Amino acid sequence: MYIENINGPQDVKKLTVEEMGTLADEMRHALLIRASKHGGHFGPNFGMVEATIALHYVFESPKDKIVYDVSHQSYPHKMLTGRKDAYLYEEHYDDVTGYSNPHESEHDFFTVGHTSTSISLAAGLAKARDLQGAEGNVIAVIGDGSLSGGEALEGLDYAKELDGNLIIVVNDNDMSIAENHGGLYTNLKLLRDTKGTAECNLFRAMGLDYYYVHEGNDVAALIDTFQKVKDSKKPVVVHIRTLKGKGYAPAEEHKEQWHYSGPFDIETGRSLFEGDEEDYSSVSCDYLLDKMKKDPKVVAITAGTPTVIGFTEDKRREAGKQFVDVGIAEETAVALASGIAAGGGKPVFGVYSSFVQRTFDQISQDLCINNNAATIVTFAGSVYGMNDVTHLGFQDIPMLSNIPNLVYLAPTTKEEYIAMLDWSIEQNEQPVAIKLPGGAMVSGRPVTKNFGDLNKYEVTQKGSKVALLGLGTFYSLANAVADEMKSELGIDATVINPYYITGLDEELLESLKVDHSVVVTIEDGILDGGFGEKIARFYGDSDMKVLNYGLKKEFLDRYDVEEVLKDNRLDAEMIAEDVKGLL
Amino acid sequence: MYIENINGPQDVKKLTVEEMGTLADEMRHALLIRASKHGGHFGPNFGMVEATIALHYVFESPKDKIVYDVSHQSYPHKMLTGRKDAYLYEEHYDDVTGYSNPHESEHDFFTVGHTSTSISLAAGLAKARDLQGAEGNVIAVIGDGSLSGGEALEGLDYAKELDGNLIIVVNDNDMSIAENHGGLYTNLKLLRDTKGTAECNLFRAMGLDYYYVHEGNDVAALIDTFQKVKDSKKPVVVHIRTLKGKGYAPAEEHKEQWHYSGPFDIETGRSLFEGDEEDYSSVSCDYLLDKMKKDPKVVAITAGTPTVIGFTEDKRREAGKQFVDVGIAEETAVALASGIAAGGGKPVFGVYSSFVQRTFDQISQDLCINNNAATIVTFAGSVYGMNDVTHLGFQDIPMLSNIPNLVYLAPTTKEEYIAMLDWSIEQNEQPVAIKLPGGAMVSGRPVTKNFGDLNKYEVTQKGSKVALLGLGTFYSLANAVADEMKSELGIDATVINPYYITGLDEELLESLKVDHSVVVTIEDGILDGGFGEKIARFYGDSDMKVLNYGLKKEFLDRYDVEEVLKDNRLDAEMIAEDVKGLL
Repeated sequence: MYIENINGPQDVKKLTVEEMGTLADEMRHALLIRASKHGGHFGPNFGMVEATIALHYVFESPKDKIVYDVSHQSYPHKMLTGRKDAYLYEEHYDDVTGYSNPHESEHDFFTVGHTSTSISLAAGLAKARDLQGAEGNVIAVIGDGSLSGGEALEGLDYAKELDGNLIIVVNDNDMSIAENHGGLYTNLKLLRDTKGTAECNLFRAMGLDYYYVHEGNDVAALIDTFQKVKDSKKPVVVHIRTLKGKGYAPAEEHKEQWHYSGPFDIETGRSLFEGDEEDYSSVSCDYLLDKMKKDPKVVAITAGTPTVIGFTEDKRREAGKQFVDVGIAEETAVALASGIAAGGGKPVFGVYSSFVQRTFDQISQDLCINNNAATIVTFAGSVYGMNDVTHLGFQDIPMLSNIPNLVYLAPTTKEEYIAMLDWSIEQNEQPVAIKLPGGAMVSGRPVTKNFGDLNKYEVTQKGSKVALLGLGTFYSLANAVADEMKSELGIDATVINPYYITGLDEELLESLKVDHSVVVTIEDGILDGGFGEKIARFYGDSDMKVLNYGLKKEFLDRYDVEEVLKDNRLDAEMIAEDVKGLL
Repeated sequence: MYIENINGPQDVKKLTVEEMGTLADEMRHALLIRASKHGGHFGPNFGMVEATIALHYVFESPKDKIVYDVSHQSYPHKMLTGRKDAYLYEEHYDDVTGYSNPHESEHDFFTVGHTSTSISLAAGLAKARDLQGAEGNVIAVIGDGSLSGGEALEGLDYAKELDGNLIIVVNDNDMSIAENHGGLYTNLKLLRDTKGTAECNLFRAMGLDYYYVHEGNDVAALIDTFQKVKDSKKPVVVHIRTLKGKGYAPAEEHKEQWHYSGPFDIETGRSLFEGDEEDYSSVSCDYLLDKMKKDPKVVAITAGTPTVIGFTEDKRREAGKQFVDVGIAEETAVALASGIAAGGGKPVFGVYSSFVQRTFDQISQDLCINNNAATIVTFAGSVYGMNDVTHLGFQDIPMLSNIPNLVYLAPTTKEEYIAMLDWSIEQNEQPVAIKLPGGAMVSGRPVTKNFGDLNKYEVTQKGSKVALLGLGTFYSLANAVADEMKSELGIDATVINPYYITGLDEELLESLKVDHSVVVTIEDGILDGGFGEKIARFYGDSDMKVLNYGLKKEFLDRYDVEEVLKDNRLDAEMIAEDVKGLL
């Protein structure tokens, strides 16, 4: 076993090309075992094994700095830079994050999890080097799928300006998370088909030098080219053709499915956990497909993550022209939605909460100033969402809810969600976003509310003294607090489902002054800039006491939900206790 | 005079090519007179006169839809679509905004003022057309400078996916606001030099058909090519070479200076108003140039608007490699700054408040998660800033101040600003943003405060009963309220300069409970998600009354500052009156 003796790049450099081939096999084997038990990003890592070995053979990390885009292809790098145990031994699997991380190793330079960042970040390292008159290569590694993102294309354009060493390795496996979308992929295909010799070349058109490696899973070929560009005095692209999922037949065959995987059976490739139950993704897709059949103007949009909104390959086929994947390009997704709405269409853009922030300006300018009736649905926007620091879902309330004209809704059940979605698609008055609740999807009573009657909250339990506003996910917690208050204090609290994150029901809030002395808000997100603070402001000049519950403003990483909830007193007993102190 | 008889595109269609040449002269004359008296975007409009005439001659607006990027080149379009009076008669100059605007005309489809949006917005109109099985051309008009923006490049990539009619007119005057920066401009040059015949072609590399018009200020040549692409069944680029500022010698010669102009003397081209007094731009540049000389690691960054941070052409030359213009590419500007800081450099990114929102994700992810010590300075982030709806400066507090790790500072004087900037550049702990105050720059006393002692506010006048927290711009208003309270009510109020937008001085706030019953916050921005609400939340469970002053969450357009201030009770007498009601 070579891998067991690799404690850093210096140990890679001792190997022969043949030995490196064996090392690659060992690394894939370890990645396979780990993925089958632990889950994680799969395909991208399997394709990058040889290139990572070659990079560490040729370059002198960490003096030469390698910056990985989005980090989905950074596992082999971690294995070769002192972190192999996290891939070889089950008890160490959680020693590393799924993303590049300077806290883990001097061979990582940024904590990165969003796509399309590597070129611009690497350009920064290169510029810092040049300002200080220092030496060393800076290498950005970016997948073809990430190239469609605005930041990546900006970075590709800026690179030439650097006028110093910057090596951009384009890992072209002819796939994004799903299939690629966008005109630039016709050029990548042309370049692959002509082994890099076509005159029309996106990278050269960006003013950059260009090398092509047809056998991007061949260590010798990669070493040869990396040696040619090492110490280049100007920015250069090395375009390598790799096979996503290489070495595991099911992953080579079903590339989209194997971009990321949960634990699975290695023999059959079958997932160990059945995932057939209904969730907000499947519910969204079912509703939308039905709607599309009745109305050709309805169109669903994704930015490179079609299954987020439930559109698996077969569903995409079913939707035909009424499903649009713009590629990883959230800015264009929102501008497109605004344009479609302006032209009389009915667009619905489904996006992870963590990624909706990639298009803040377009939501504000292209969409909200124009007040076009497009719908945005944010998924996993919750403390119960993804828990990596780069994919947090509890920051979208301050981000979205303070933009004028936008109506941001917080359903608490499947039925409320579908009713809101249907209302939003049918109305022509304004842009609407819907924040899906976190945790398991719950069903509730049928909805009769007219959501066009803006900012009218619903009192679901009429009481006195204490009013509990439970927004979205935490409506159930508000009910639990009410139960606690009843059983512990004998108080019948008022419970309110606010629905609207973006507006106050001033009439209702005013009326609470009559027979309530405490108002409690509970929201699934950071408190700063959020919903509760608006309620606190409303009551600022009155005798009403206001308690806001939500999360502290901080970047959490790989957190334990229950711990975070307790730390923030998001707990029925704790809240009841706090309220008691004010009565 | 032909222009006086142009009441819509139908009147353009009646003219011969020769007559259209005369019309172009008349339009330029009117634009010149208007600009000399009224000011506005200059160079881009002068270059687009012939192309606009040709577009309206060939296409059938509004059935065919023309979408202008950023709108700096939309004046000729307005002249030909029923709005000529606003360009011919001084009393009507203010009938139109400086931007495309659907409220003005059925020939405008979006209110647009940020760059790089046209292709994606136009793609939306095209998609809506196709979903509905309708007819008509959709034309995006985009300048070469706007092409470097992420949204534009994403849109260019997405366009091919449309698989239907979309005509992208690239108005190439070889200039951004200042000179262009980025590798793609080498390709535009190659295309111009080869009259569009070079094999290496950015647009073809994006999968698009391509036409080139070398004489982009020749109506006949333009008509000829537009007729060829009219009703194209697929996306196509028409690359036209134009002369920025064409027809006015000073503007042709000094293109950067004449991108936008205030009122001027037509004979000499000299500005009617002297603009030599010190302002935050010149102060920033002077400080930075001095700092750069002492420290080669200091670098100033702009995204296509170098003079915002004071770097005129001569100052840029002086800064050399220590000044970076990434082109219109705010996302890359922030990622680059983060990378430079990670590599030991000291980057300062100067940006308009309205444009900082174009890089929200990079500030949060690339910069703040990584906690790199880059500095961002936001200009014109004030109710006193630009007053077009697309360029508002009063939304950056909720946008920036709720991002974890970022320290967002609000100086009230020149001295405080420079002290903060110097502290920020020298520290290595965290990312810092500085919000410049609005209105005229004021000088104050020397600053001794250590800004590294985070979230410590300063009590500048110790009183009792009422505490006034005046943030940034409105620190002076807080003092005025204190004076008012003294003279009208005989109350010695406490006045506080909070400095920190992103954190609470909990110790100080707690201590106010002893002998104060009312806390007032005044901030230069919308209240929703802002500073004051955090104070209201802090005091929510106490008897302290809190009054928050700032702006309502709304998109204002071409507003009158004094009116807006009154509407929001941002007035010393009004605030004193409100406070009185609570005592």
